[in-house]
Amino acid sequence: MSLTHHIPHLLGIEGMTEKDITPFLDLAESYALLSRSRNAPRDVLQGRTVINLFFEDSTRTRTSFELAAKRLGADVVNMTVATSSVNKGETLLDTASTLNAMHCDLLVVRHAQSGAPALLSQKVEASVVNAGDGMHEHPTQALLDGLTIRRHFGRLSGLKIAICGDIAHSRVARSDIHLLRAMGNDIHLAGPPTLLPGALGTLNGVTLHHNIDDALKDADVAMCLRVQRERMGSGLVPSAREYFSLFGLDRRRLALAKPGALVMHPGPMNRGVEIASAVADSPQSVISEQVEMGVAVRMAVLDRLSRMKNPA
Amino acid sequence: MSLTHHIPHLLGIEGMTEKDITPFLDLAESYALLSRSRNAPRDVLQGRTVINLFFEDSTRTRTSFELAAKRLGADVVNMTVATSSVNKGETLLDTASTLNAMHCDLLVVRHAQSGAPALLSQKVEASVVNAGDGMHEHPTQALLDGLTIRRHFGRLSGLKIAICGDIAHSRVARSDIHLLRAMGNDIHLAGPPTLLPGALGTLNGVTLHHNIDDALKDADVAMCLRVQRERMGSGLVPSAREYFSLFGLDRRRLALAKPGALVMHPGPMNRGVEIASAVADSPQSVISEQVEMGVAVRMAVLDRLSRMKNPA
Amino acid sequence: MSLTHHIPHLLGIEGMTEKDITPFLDLAESYALLSRSRNAPRDVLQGRTVINLFFEDSTRTRTSFELAAKRLGADVVNMTVATSSVNKGETLLDTASTLNAMHCDLLVVRHAQSGAPALLSQKVEASVVNAGDGMHEHPTQALLDGLTIRRHFGRLSGLKIAICGDIAHSRVARSDIHLLRAMGNDIHLAGPPTLLPGALGTLNGVTLHHNIDDALKDADVAMCLRVQRERMGSGLVPSAREYFSLFGLDRRRLALAKPGALVMHPGPMNRGVEIASAVADSPQSVISEQVEMGVAVRMAVLDRLSRMKNPA
Repeated sequence: MSLTHHIPHLLGIEGMTEKDITPFLDLAESYALLSRSRNAPRDVLQGRTVINLFFEDSTRTRTSFELAAKRLGADVVNMTVATSSVNKGETLLDTASTLNAMHCDLLVVRHAQSGAPALLSQKVEASVVNAGDGMHEHPTQALLDGLTIRRHFGRLSGLKIAICGDIAHSRVARSDIHLLRAMGNDIHLAGPPTLLPGALGTLNGVTLHHNIDDALKDADVAMCLRVQRERMGSGLVPSAREYFSLFGLDRRRLALAKPGALVMHPGPMNRGVEIASAVADSPQSVISEQVEMGVAVRMAVLDRLSRMKNPA
Repeated sequence: MSLTHHIPHLLGIEGMTEKDITPFLDLAESYALLSRSRNAPRDVLQGRTVINLFFEDSTRTRTSFELAAKRLGADVVNMTVATSSVNKGETLLDTASTLNAMHCDLLVVRHAQSGAPALLSQKVEASVVNAGDGMHEHPTQALLDGLTIRRHFGRLSGLKIAICGDIAHSRVARSDIHLLRAMGNDIHLAGPPTLLPGALGTLNGVTLHHNIDDALKDADVAMCLRVQRERMGSGLVPSAREYFSLFGLDRRRLALAKPGALVMHPGPMNRGVEIASAVADSPQSVISEQVEMGVAVRMAVLDRLSRMKNPA
Repeated sequence: MSLTHHIPHLLGIEGMTEKDITPFLDLAESYALLSRSRNAPRDVLQGRTVINLFFEDSTRTRTSFELAAKRLGADVVNMTVATSSVNKGETLLDTASTLNAMHCDLLVVRHAQSGAPALLSQKVEASVVNAGDGMHEHPTQALLDGLTIRRHFGRLSGLKIAICGDIAHSRVARSDIHLLRAMGNDIHLAGPPTLLPGALGTLNGVTLHHNIDDALKDADVAMCLRVQRERMGSGLVPSAREYFSLFGLDRRRLALAKPGALVMHPGPMNRGVEIASAVADSPQSVISEQVEMGVAVRMAVLDRLSRMKNPA
């Protein structure tokens, strides 16, 4: 979270402390309860404009933000920009000027390039929410993962959390690692050697494993990452079948974790590749709850950023 | 209409009786009157989430549902999923879990595969409305056709109704046949031998004709189906020109029907192929009214399903 | 502006007088002030349906209209129709019937063919707003340009206005020329000989120049047009580099205009082609304000057309 000219943004989790993170989780928790009874307070963002600026297509994430904003009463506009046509060649900063001129209050940005939301945040008068940028961060995913874990354990600290898969290229993993470390957890990463991160592995509280079994041992949480199918069988990444036999989360491996350990996945899943169907559909799986918390977390983020900008 | 775990859906017309169908038509009739004066009660779906999940593109049907839902005050989100990318490989059932987690109340589904809405309805907590699935059903089209006919004749029974064209592949025809039979009409189907249905033709109250003139004779309603241009000239289907001369509804053929017989078409029309422009634009044509009743019927369907699920 | 069966449309600026234009600018001015404080009156279009029917993709213009309509409380539906698939072959007039049947109140149309909005306006019961048609007109762009100029000079008459670039193919230029002439300004057009218009150059109050420096001399306003990159280097149009050296608005050229002359561009800009970055980002540039006035003008247009149709 950074402040530029007093405009609050959510660009990444890196650098956020437990004190920065907890208020988002608390507010999201209250929205999670309201949402079940469909009683979201529609005046929170009444008259505010939320623009979903997606340079990469993502139906799930866009829908989650769109629902969050609509349930709080905002005017929501989707601007999906095919990267191929590159918005008729307009620069990102000219797009920022355009959005300012349209009086956008909250700007949700997904972009294939790391740092694009941060760049936009320097020019727009809107609060920017990073909805995933390149291989950098996906902060609302980390918040929803954190909230899901906290709801099950009653706390978000002192847990052993295994994260398995293509960590090097995953913005989800990066944001999760930053958030889970900031909250004081013990993080174990496992994946093919070519997909393990360099820098992240040297952080305090983070341990690298080449063998997924070691990472899962006595874990409270087993988090799978989505394997990019386009990377598979490229020499760097094994084929889907090999991947499953080496790193797929199946029943045998899940049994290495603590009894009742949570199974998580950011979705959409490649069943039979990074996760066995029996595990994805088991009672330990909280994958649907992650999606549910996703809407609640995005409501909380839009609400808090708006409030921090416009103190009552 | 089926009930799964007390959640009402509208998956198809087959199996619905006159008692099931009439309340939808009655409510739609009242919405049709309101809509003219733009006085739809916006609290009917206030706080409810309607998701239009379209795996096949259909601007018309999607727009009709979107308007219906917005006029009743719902939060509406469009999820158009290109079938080519297949939603990053996510299974339909995983999509269902995602929609549940987002607290979707009413799910409008169009899919190229017959049975996809029914499959989804087994997993989602939302009421599912089939907006067209493969060669199976398109129930809201049948309801709007029924309503249009009822408004003109004052009844929806005892009428001779000719349906002409590619009946074998038409979900519109299937739903219409089920609805019109359930209401007690005399149905006459005509089309090229390769495009006439097997099973439907053996039903009580349904007569097959190879000659369109026979079907139209003394008909109260002449319903044309859209010919799929991609099927034309394939050997199974004649060319556009041949089609028009053999099965196109022109003035001469329309004169075989009763005086003042209604001309119907589900749209969009191929003028000069299945229907002559002079007929499409004649005073007997109710093609625009079908579109108008489409919005009213969808308002009624969304309203009733929502009410049946959440009794006041 | 034309009246068909008492339904007001905004199809073009040609033929509008100062008396027709000023009320749009005045109302837009008041919306521009409201918009800053996010206090748009949401009951202006409550219960009204605005359909954005875009046969050409234009994220900016569509978003501007969408925001304008939502801020006035309308139900807004986007119908983006890829021209390639041509809406399953449906004719434009059949599309009009469909929109009527759906009770569309205000129809915003962009189309690659000149005259398409006018054609639609003859068949729809909605007020049609031309959002750009072929090489014909783009009237809301002219209104927003006029408003931007008026806000800076306190008047929209007696000014020397230079318009530079591909004027022959530009609907923006055509609408601007009609509006600025109607308001009584002195218009100077400059561009490559192949891109200068024939007919427009013979109008009273319009002067053609082959040399951009002559057009800019003592100008109050320097308006650049976007060069279509696909036309460049085609023999008719110079390469980007040549274009910039011959017709690009750089600092030296801007210095030929009056001190403090306004720099305008309809966006999106090709920086370094028709305009130098130093000029686009200079204090004289009102390019962002044009976008801002765009939303205000569209609110005014939707409001006025709706009011003229439904007198209170």
